[in-house]
Amino acid sequence: MDGTAVIFTQRYYQSPQAKTAHGLVRGTERYQILAVLDSEAAGQDAGTVLDGRPRQIPIVSGLEAFLATGQRADYLIIGIANAGGKLDPAWMPVIADAIRAGMSIVSGMHELLADQPVLTALAEAQGVRLIDVRRPRHRDELHFWTGEIHEVTSARIAVLGTDCAVGKRTAARMLTQACRQDGLQAEMIYTGQTGWMQGGQYGFVFDATLNDFVSGELEHAIVSCYRNLHPDVMFIEGQAALRNPSGPCGSEMLVSGNANGVILVHPPGRVYYKGWEHLGRKIFPLYSEVQLVEAYGPRVLGIALNTQHLSHEEALTWQRHYEKELSIPVVLPVEEGVNSLIPAVRSLIH
Amino acid sequence: MDGTAVIFTQRYYQSPQAKTAHGLVRGTERYQILAVLDSEAAGQDAGTVLDGRPRQIPIVSGLEAFLATGQRADYLIIGIANAGGKLDPAWMPVIADAIRAGMSIVSGMHELLADQPVLTALAEAQGVRLIDVRRPRHRDELHFWTGEIHEVTSARIAVLGTDCAVGKRTAARMLTQACRQDGLQAEMIYTGQTGWMQGGQYGFVFDATLNDFVSGELEHAIVSCYRNLHPDVMFIEGQAALRNPSGPCGSEMLVSGNANGVILVHPPGRVYYKGWEHLGRKIFPLYSEVQLVEAYGPRVLGIALNTQHLSHEEALTWQRHYEKELSIPVVLPVEEGVNSLIPAVRSLIH
Repeated sequence: MDGTAVIFTQRYYQSPQAKTAHGLVRGTERYQILAVLDSEAAGQDAGTVLDGRPRQIPIVSGLEAFLATGQRADYLIIGIANAGGKLDPAWMPVIADAIRAGMSIVSGMHELLADQPVLTALAEAQGVRLIDVRRPRHRDELHFWTGEIHEVTSARIAVLGTDCAVGKRTAARMLTQACRQDGLQAEMIYTGQTGWMQGGQYGFVFDATLNDFVSGELEHAIVSCYRNLHPDVMFIEGQAALRNPSGPCGSEMLVSGNANGVILVHPPGRVYYKGWEHLGRKIFPLYSEVQLVEAYGPRVLGIALNTQHLSHEEALTWQRHYEKELSIPVVLPVEEGVNSLIPAVRSLIH
Repeated sequence: MDGTAVIFTQRYYQSPQAKTAHGLVRGTERYQILAVLDSEAAGQDAGTVLDGRPRQIPIVSGLEAFLATGQRADYLIIGIANAGGKLDPAWMPVIADAIRAGMSIVSGMHELLADQPVLTALAEAQGVRLIDVRRPRHRDELHFWTGEIHEVTSARIAVLGTDCAVGKRTAARMLTQACRQDGLQAEMIYTGQTGWMQGGQYGFVFDATLNDFVSGELEHAIVSCYRNLHPDVMFIEGQAALRNPSGPCGSEMLVSGNANGVILVHPPGRVYYKGWEHLGRKIFPLYSEVQLVEAYGPRVLGIALNTQHLSHEEALTWQRHYEKELSIPVVLPVEEGVNSLIPAVRSLIH
């Protein structure tokens, strides 16, 4: 545990843009979350707003309101993941005030805190840190793929999605926890900034890595986890989707990560790739995504449905439909957990 | 044309490691190549050694021997593409001597000339440039994917391979030239450092780009080419292979580049992915690669065979075999050119 933290979401906590905050509210082993700072959702419990389950994390209107309670936090975390990864000028006064209040700042933006001279001077004067989780690493710190992945005997399950922002990280985290409760030694390999913020020990930030080193960094994370912990199973967090036009991803997990099983997360209530509705780029049917995954080699073990835009009845209808169509288990993770995927996971463990 | 150049290959001209040199000997519009510097192949014509066709480019034993002829060159190009992309300490004296002789240095290594203080000081003193083609660009210079690719009406043909170092760039260049001779306006989108060195105007260096910007840089290159030239067809240079374990690649061209056709380059004489023979990772059968490509959407228009390790008779046998199996044209580019692929290319042009 690195310390106590508040999460800043400006006024976006109730939108998918705040998915970093949502992940941290669901759970993190790196920080003790004291509050969410959001002007629109203030006064409620952050868990209740997220999925109806209170988590004793109050939402307050801003930093001033938080400090007025007399509490202090070690970190302010930027809880928004916008598309361009740019720091919003509107955040600057809040960040500066947090630094003046003795807080270190954690950001997962492409645009770096460390590149803002005003912030670096202020942080130095206050003796606090600016932590850029997405800072690209220099090639001397990066690994090429070596083939050492072939020594890993743990099951390697890639948690891929048919689109961005469908809950791949959340599903991977739930699977890891469910397997542990079922007596398996399970680990998660994170591939995004939120995974690190949630306390991930093995992984890397995929999209901030020079392309030539992506496969090697992924292998290095998996092999390090294997050598240190020899888990029964590793769940590898996917990114984007195999056919997402703005950045196809997944073959790295399937091929370089040598995955031997896949869990696919799919949102039946979404027609177009998120953000590309105006282009008319439709998400491919689930059976076609299963075929594409299996053309790479690994078998799809099960499906996790994202129920956005669906009534509970519609969600159950889709669940039955896909179970019949694909003859593999289909779960609604948020509504009913992921336990019914465990037998399929166990089938890969010897 | 940037100027005259010599290509330094140390003693590796006759190995696949010197593929950058090989590409430049085959042709470049950026430099006039005066000589190849290679201690093992000295005394021969660089074209003859490459593929039996003289190109009036002498191989001399080293820089000293070149300078002794009384000639001068504007550039020394490092013609080796090793796996780690590291500068070899053994090259340093040659690079330093070239700078002292007034030559600018061109390198496609991951390790940068500009990070070597000895070289930067020397270059500054001599008033020459250190050109690092693989220098990663800062995020401010990079593009995200926007969807503007949908305005492009030119045919977009991805030239992919079933492995690394099979001749994707060479096939793309030959196709571009053959189409031009056939009266089409054809352009090539480069995606590697050698493509830039050969004079490519539209493209980027894929493997030296932060992963989140790969799709956008590819789109930007294609859209820029389209807006400036409105060609009939663009050939997009592939990288690695869809299932190459050390770095799968290709979905970016198929999905973000919105390719509507594919030419696949395949080496029937090679059993394992290059460099991974000891892992036993076999190259997948050609029909299975065609299926995987087509699972992404675009149709495979034709095959180009790399005839390494094959007799001419064996190459012809494979050609007939694949034509029968796949019912699409199969060519031997080096031996017979790529003209018989042109009708398939034309089928995409309206």
